[in-house]
Amino acid sequence: MPPADLAWMLAAFALVLLMFPGLALFYGGMLDGRNALNMFMMVMGSLAVTSVVYVLFVHGLVVGDSVGGLGLIGDPLPFLDGSVYTADDGSDSAYWAAFYTLFAAISIGIVASGAAGRMRFGAWLLFAVLWVVLVYAPLAHWVFTFSDEESGYVGGWIRNVLELHDYAGGTAVHMNAGAAALALALVLGPRRAPAGRPHNLSLVLLGAGFLFFGWIGFNGGTAAGANFLAGYVTFTTLLAALAGSLGFMLVERIRDGQATTLGFATGLIAGLVGITPAADAVTPVGSVVLGFVTAIVVAWAITWKRRHKIDDSFDAFAVHGIGGIVGAYFVVLFGAASAPAGIAGVLFGGDPLLVVRETVAIVVTCVYSFGVTYAIAWVMDRVRPIRVSERVEADGLDRGLHAETAYEFDRV
Amino acid sequence: MPPADLAWMLAAFALVLLMFPGLALFYGGMLDGRNALNMFMMVMGSLAVTSVVYVLFVHGLVVGDSVGGLGLIGDPLPFLDGSVYTADDGSDSAYWAAFYTLFAAISIGIVASGAAGRMRFGAWLLFAVLWVVLVYAPLAHWVFTFSDEESGYVGGWIRNVLELHDYAGGTAVHMNAGAAALALALVLGPRRAPAGRPHNLSLVLLGAGFLFFGWIGFNGGTAAGANFLAGYVTFTTLLAALAGSLGFMLVERIRDGQATTLGFATGLIAGLVGITPAADAVTPVGSVVLGFVTAIVVAWAITWKRRHKIDDSFDAFAVHGIGGIVGAYFVVLFGAASAPAGIAGVLFGGDPLLVVRETVAIVVTCVYSFGVTYAIAWVMDRVRPIRVSERVEADGLDRGLHAETAYEFDRV
Amino acid sequence: MPPADLAWMLAAFALVLLMFPGLALFYGGMLDGRNALNMFMMVMGSLAVTSVVYVLFVHGLVVGDSVGGLGLIGDPLPFLDGSVYTADDGSDSAYWAAFYTLFAAISIGIVASGAAGRMRFGAWLLFAVLWVVLVYAPLAHWVFTFSDEESGYVGGWIRNVLELHDYAGGTAVHMNAGAAALALALVLGPRRAPAGRPHNLSLVLLGAGFLFFGWIGFNGGTAAGANFLAGYVTFTTLLAALAGSLGFMLVERIRDGQATTLGFATGLIAGLVGITPAADAVTPVGSVVLGFVTAIVVAWAITWKRRHKIDDSFDAFAVHGIGGIVGAYFVVLFGAASAPAGIAGVLFGGDPLLVVRETVAIVVTCVYSFGVTYAIAWVMDRVRPIRVSERVEADGLDRGLHAETAYEFDRV
Repeated sequence: MPPADLAWMLAAFALVLLMFPGLALFYGGMLDGRNALNMFMMVMGSLAVTSVVYVLFVHGLVVGDSVGGLGLIGDPLPFLDGSVYTADDGSDSAYWAAFYTLFAAISIGIVASGAAGRMRFGAWLLFAVLWVVLVYAPLAHWVFTFSDEESGYVGGWIRNVLELHDYAGGTAVHMNAGAAALALALVLGPRRAPAGRPHNLSLVLLGAGFLFFGWIGFNGGTAAGANFLAGYVTFTTLLAALAGSLGFMLVERIRDGQATTLGFATGLIAGLVGITPAADAVTPVGSVVLGFVTAIVVAWAITWKRRHKIDDSFDAFAVHGIGGIVGAYFVVLFGAASAPAGIAGVLFGGDPLLVVRETVAIVVTCVYSFGVTYAIAWVMDRVRPIRVSERVEADGLDRGLHAETAYEFDRV
Repeated sequence: MPPADLAWMLAAFALVLLMFPGLALFYGGMLDGRNALNMFMMVMGSLAVTSVVYVLFVHGLVVGDSVGGLGLIGDPLPFLDGSVYTADDGSDSAYWAAFYTLFAAISIGIVASGAAGRMRFGAWLLFAVLWVVLVYAPLAHWVFTFSDEESGYVGGWIRNVLELHDYAGGTAVHMNAGAAALALALVLGPRRAPAGRPHNLSLVLLGAGFLFFGWIGFNGGTAAGANFLAGYVTFTTLLAALAGSLGFMLVERIRDGQATTLGFATGLIAGLVGITPAADAVTPVGSVVLGFVTAIVVAWAITWKRRHKIDDSFDAFAVHGIGGIVGAYFVVLFGAASAPAGIAGVLFGGDPLLVVRETVAIVVTCVYSFGVTYAIAWVMDRVRPIRVSERVEADGLDRGLHAETAYEFDRV
Repeated sequence: MPPADLAWMLAAFALVLLMFPGLALFYGGMLDGRNALNMFMMVMGSLAVTSVVYVLFVHGLVVGDSVGGLGLIGDPLPFLDGSVYTADDGSDSAYWAAFYTLFAAISIGIVASGAAGRMRFGAWLLFAVLWVVLVYAPLAHWVFTFSDEESGYVGGWIRNVLELHDYAGGTAVHMNAGAAALALALVLGPRRAPAGRPHNLSLVLLGAGFLFFGWIGFNGGTAAGANFLAGYVTFTTLLAALAGSLGFMLVERIRDGQATTLGFATGLIAGLVGITPAADAVTPVGSVVLGFVTAIVVAWAITWKRRHKIDDSFDAFAVHGIGGIVGAYFVVLFGAASAPAGIAGVLFGGDPLLVVRETVAIVVTCVYSFGVTYAIAWVMDRVRPIRVSERVEADGLDRGLHAETAYEFDRV
């Protein structure tokens, strides 16, 4: 790619990389202090195994030419000998593989939240590999790859047959991860002890800050260069995130009497999730509304879920699943023709079929992700229980699985 | 703008964005542990409301053509329909609005420090909106906008009539925020309990690290592209910051017998404030001297202020107000003609009127900011007290306003 | 340089800057809670003094034309008047000086770990200055500067006479810092109290995250622009780091029964050190193997060292010294001709003399660094003891040297 585009993309890669410690701190700080390190290990450990399988063959599954032209899965064979990465032919394949590795890894990182405080570490690493191959790779291929008549390249069916507009991964990343976290939480069953209050909100806020920072690289980098679109989505991403925090705080203020930092952070992430599929399809003012509404819906979804016994510990399904769905429907209902994507939403005279197509994409994504994730976890659990022993859970996974404690303040 | 310039500006935006968690941690860590979360909420909450009013109409107040050609305030009308942001015409207005939003928000974020541990959260959010509109927007228009004869655009009077050189916002951001924090602290009155020691210096240092990191984007981004100037100010910013930390530590060593980490961090920020108006107007060695001297003067100002009863909790007036003034006078007294700005300071044969003009700008900025800020806070307080109840203050604002505590270490 | 290249280099500078709080937190979190602040002060304090001497004359020692054409040390004279930095002639000297300052400072920052918990702060700052001038500057000149026939510029002997391939500083930064940390630890002697467990693993992990993030700027920035090479090394750096964490965890799992977060972080850093000299000389899959093997060798070296009484507190010698050596030998043994560096390793038909030349470079680097560092510390200690008093060490250096404590949780 042109050097100026690459200059931004290199920086965007680094921004996204900081989302991993961000996610680890965000979730780890929300847990009690005896399971925080394990959460770090789950997020960073799945990044590690993802990166290895990614370079070995997953990159081809995602971006390779669709096998048989069916739009179902990419062909990994041309990537196996690695020559595509070392060729200095202007395609910058090594860079793109690095960037896409992070997309895969952030998805499985979100899924980790569904297993907080109760999964064996070895089982988690194996699960992560299977999930990236069997769930993430097909979905990413369906959504992220564009067919190209000139070269004859055939991309995924959701993008090219269904013609879904999904700016930066509302389906393949967020709905997918949200549905998968729910499935994994169901297979594992709820934690035995009631979840305590977050042990360290400073870490939660720090983590949220990193996620915000990194999301500029995630959404800005999806513009694939230093162009008008990248600048545009930077603005809409900023606005939706902050409007999300305001929306969530407003719900809390009305419902509970006060706004919390945890609510601020949750609303921020909800706004970011909501804008992800829509960053190029709404006006700046529209992005404020989008972030605000997404956060309110997510707040409602969290409250609704709390009444049930599903231990999706950090509400990945509500935040990423529901948040992603809200953002996706915003595009097809309220999309602004003047925005870069140029999609007129149905309420602004757009084609009503947009809603049908979007709904198909959402249903397929959620059903596929939930179903296959459930199956992987269930089969693994039959072969060997994926949940830690009762004793390890009672002791906390930091001590039980990693022989460590997060803090030693005795000698301060 | 050219793609290469935009590539750097996108990264610079992200760097500046990390200053917000940085500021929150920097101030939050300095407080006792029962008010730390509230400080995060003040900094991030004001970022949120600023971003919403910014996109609605404040951006026009700042960068719009001066109403009546008077150089007092920009015309927001052409920005109201949002078409300027969606136009892919090379102006990258959406990007610039995003970048400038952060400049407004970091200013009000610094003001938050003046209210540490005693302001109602709702009152703070309302105050933040009023302050950005009534104080920040005019000052930013006066200082940041350049008149352009060709297009007929008229910018602010301080920049264009007074011809003030202020590289990246010594007046509109730092003196302004410092004077405003002082005014707000005066209206609120001092905290009832004596300020304890910082509850978590790791967070303070982490926050200082983020501010340092982000300041590279703040000063480097003010070069408006990937050019010689951006590289130059990166070097002077680095040097002034670190020389500032050395200067502050030296004062502490001589005065108290030892250098502290809090002193290191304070000196670092003082050096960064000092170089902000001067980054392009001094040589690299000059920036070392500037940082060193600024920090020493700031250290003296903090000591002086401590003798009085003004509870400007984290010395925003000393660090940002006095620090900004020192940096500004450095330009007109010791500016190097060889530096990119090409301003010969008075001591190097420059025009003595430079000092007069700089003094006018400083006095106008500080008086306007202090006066209007005081008036906003005073009026708000008359309508409904802006200070929390005695009981909430005694309990700590984290519990009293947000129903949370920063740490739950019982179960570690 | 072209604007697009500068755009990436400005971002890369910022990334590397965040390595300093990263290093401070990484080491500080590993210490007990009474010496954590001092570690921050050592890392950031040496950055501060390094930056001042760097702009005064060290930059010339490193990048200046070799004195007498001998390739031993650069000529600082042309840099003394500072005009090289203010000249807008396309050389961007101010930027490069800023970037290289961080290379020098990160090296002495690693050395700080060898003195953890027992060195006077004033002695440390003086030592840092002497070390940068006498140890780092010559080594950096030897390794980092390329002779240029056309301009007549003569660079360092290791790079140009020995023709060592060292992508981003395996020798001048990592082996050098590792050997120096060992020498300093030997002169100081071991800490009196046994090292406790890390007091705050969240900080360690956060610090590791920053180092990972910054290393993308370190290795990516060594490509000197937004080019294919920068994208390539981003991928290999990512892969080697994460494979390193997997390698270290595997050793722990087999040896101790469980993988720890400290092991994850140590393996990550080991992988990063290993790839530093080799990032452009191996294939992506090769970088996975390199990271994995480096971490295993480093894990073994740490175990081996623990049996001896050398208090190199955070194993800088094992991680940076041994890790750097493993990475360097990877280039000459397993280098891939298809990788950008185009070096066929000896096992792939390359010139066996590569191994000899690499060995000479390693031995010279380690012997020079160890010897001169030992001499500096030894002489300083004779003039005035560089170690703190027994009482200060027993109280902890935070209280004893800086009159502070890292945490005040009483009032939480």
